[in-house]
Amino acid sequence: MSTGRLEAFSDGVIAVAITLLVLNLSVPSPASHHTLAHNLAKNWPSYVAYVISFATIGIIWINHHTVISRLRETDRAILALNLLLLMSIGVLPFTTDLVAQYISHAGRDQQLAAFLYSVSLLVMSLAFASLIWQTLFPKAHLLRGELSEVHRRRILKRSLTGLLPYAVATVVAPFSPYLTFAICGLVAAFYASPLSVPRT
Amino acid sequence: MSTGRLEAFSDGVIAVAITLLVLNLSVPSPASHHTLAHNLAKNWPSYVAYVISFATIGIIWINHHTVISRLRETDRAILALNLLLLMSIGVLPFTTDLVAQYISHAGRDQQLAAFLYSVSLLVMSLAFASLIWQTLFPKAHLLRGELSEVHRRRILKRSLTGLLPYAVATVVAPFSPYLTFAICGLVAAFYASPLSVPRT
Amino acid sequence: MSTGRLEAFSDGVIAVAITLLVLNLSVPSPASHHTLAHNLAKNWPSYVAYVISFATIGIIWINHHTVISRLRETDRAILALNLLLLMSIGVLPFTTDLVAQYISHAGRDQQLAAFLYSVSLLVMSLAFASLIWQTLFPKAHLLRGELSEVHRRRILKRSLTGLLPYAVATVVAPFSPYLTFAICGLVAAFYASPLSVPRT
Amino acid sequence: MSTGRLEAFSDGVIAVAITLLVLNLSVPSPASHHTLAHNLAKNWPSYVAYVISFATIGIIWINHHTVISRLRETDRAILALNLLLLMSIGVLPFTTDLVAQYISHAGRDQQLAAFLYSVSLLVMSLAFASLIWQTLFPKAHLLRGELSEVHRRRILKRSLTGLLPYAVATVVAPFSPYLTFAICGLVAAFYASPLSVPRT
Repeated sequence: MSTGRLEAFSDGVIAVAITLLVLNLSVPSPASHHTLAHNLAKNWPSYVAYVISFATIGIIWINHHTVISRLRETDRAILALNLLLLMSIGVLPFTTDLVAQYISHAGRDQQLAAFLYSVSLLVMSLAFASLIWQTLFPKAHLLRGELSEVHRRRILKRSLTGLLPYAVATVVAPFSPYLTFAICGLVAAFYASPLSVPRT
Repeated sequence: MSTGRLEAFSDGVIAVAITLLVLNLSVPSPASHHTLAHNLAKNWPSYVAYVISFATIGIIWINHHTVISRLRETDRAILALNLLLLMSIGVLPFTTDLVAQYISHAGRDQQLAAFLYSVSLLVMSLAFASLIWQTLFPKAHLLRGELSEVHRRRILKRSLTGLLPYAVATVVAPFSPYLTFAICGLVAAFYASPLSVPRT
Repeated sequence: MSTGRLEAFSDGVIAVAITLLVLNLSVPSPASHHTLAHNLAKNWPSYVAYVISFATIGIIWINHHTVISRLRETDRAILALNLLLLMSIGVLPFTTDLVAQYISHAGRDQQLAAFLYSVSLLVMSLAFASLIWQTLFPKAHLLRGELSEVHRRRILKRSLTGLLPYAVATVVAPFSPYLTFAICGLVAAFYASPLSVPRT
Repeated sequence: MSTGRLEAFSDGVIAVAITLLVLNLSVPSPASHHTLAHNLAKNWPSYVAYVISFATIGIIWINHHTVISRLRETDRAILALNLLLLMSIGVLPFTTDLVAQYISHAGRDQQLAAFLYSVSLLVMSLAFASLIWQTLFPKAHLLRGELSEVHRRRILKRSLTGLLPYAVATVVAPFSPYLTFAICGLVAAFYASPLSVPRT
């Protein structure tokens, strides 16, 4: 199977997921007793979560492109792993809304919401690292050009390093949900900045 | 008509339908008297239904690609059948939500919801089998290469076999809605696993 | 400007609009006093409207493809008209929901909803006929091959004839909203059937 | 990195955002005490805002195409800026809904909503002008053909001139929210009309 339609479908799913994030930004009711300014300000976690998830999905899209463009063709195992990755991306509008709605309610619920948000990002990164591993090692014969083993190991290592901050964010969620949220934001900012080298 | 734009449009519809499934995952109200953990746990059927429908649509996408890639070009009859298939896929976010909301309420409503969910998957498989039949037999002259009649019969038979589990799931719905749900899940797991050969 | 990206963008908008129709199918609340069967049955206009609008948008997509594939390239006037067509398609999930929710409430509101639904289909057909006229006459130099004036007039006439049933449906709305609804359905059924020749 | 997939992904996001605008058009409840005609008429700002935002996003799509088609290839800086542009487009369904719901409630809330709507359009135009600047000056070596400095300066200047009306609309929001709304509409009408030359 050629990679062209895999890319087209993945682009479609990622584009829809990233754009659906806007549905989490709700317009306060005009019938509210508070001013619009007050009601919008109260929703600040929604805007922060929107930006973090938008940037994160955008970065994953760039990296996904890099991975797929290295392939000459795909097979069912790669398609299945790619589907798993898309599922983990497709679920982000939900976990983004979850953390946005609970991050400012101190307590158990807040901790759980932050935990689930960073878990969802961790799972997405794991699915992505698995796809990289699969294409670089078991399916190396599908690669477009020759990649030395040293080079392939370096790429995989970099993608595994990318898991670390999300693992940390997940572990600290029960202690400091805001720190979890901040780590997820810093990861996105780092990868979107010129400081980063391509994660793949 | 070339198959390129048919693929692009079908990819678009399938990508949107698979991603819209996330709208069925609702964030529990922070004003609830219960803990977030309790409220999320209560929604378990939503998560299960999400995974089953996501995997099912993903598999149909892979198989759809296989069918279309065998064609040199398309005609209006194929376009009309393809539109029917897309309609049956497009309706899945609704039947998925239906089964998710009713599967844990024992009684008539639960049976009906499970019945309608597996009927919607059965209809989708029927539309897909019709598309395969149409492209392999009446429109065999549009095929890209030569396929022996034995080979074409085998492909059609395999796709008809794929209808069986959904027919069973539909029949058992009035007796055991959970079994219906489980069968739909097992079908998705089987086709996503390396055990399966391409259904087309 | 090449037609490739125009097609890609139009395919995207049409694919999203056709798939968003499913959001009009709402799952009855499990807390209702009525049975699920009763509540679903009461929503029958939603299912009928879904099928009519899905088929109508699907047919427009097929016809749109035919029009654009005749062009070698596009210009800003064609892009602007195409955008108008996409806007008239993009609004259909709204008018579809409108007619579905009001068609079974006899009275003024029902008449207005049926009227607005067929007006929205009439406007879409008008935008489409304008696009055909624009590409065949003022912009005939952008056509891929030579088309005789007789042939071009025949294509335009056919597309104008396609407006008639929607005009009739709009006019009868104040007298018989169900007839309006039925005409819109018959038009879709006719164009989806093998009886029709391509409308373009 | 080739520009093909950048275009495909951008087309996807823009197509989803432009089509999601329809979710802001809500069907009045059939249980309302008022007539449907009255309830629909009351929602007029939703329809106006829909048309303005649809046209604006459509124009940005056309201009985006022009910018990207000038490039031979892209790099990470362009991808990051493009992502920023897509984020500013992705947020428009929210600010469109905001202005539509508040424009007819005279007072502070109305002023704030109009202000935020024009700010969101201003930010989008700024992101677009930055993308143009980035591709024409720091990344001029990625351009497909040779463009004289005079020509490049003219293109950039035109895109900066395009910011002016949004800046004015933003400044007048606290004094006359309707004027803000009107300016945003006039900008869309101007660029969609044959009066305009391509903004890029």
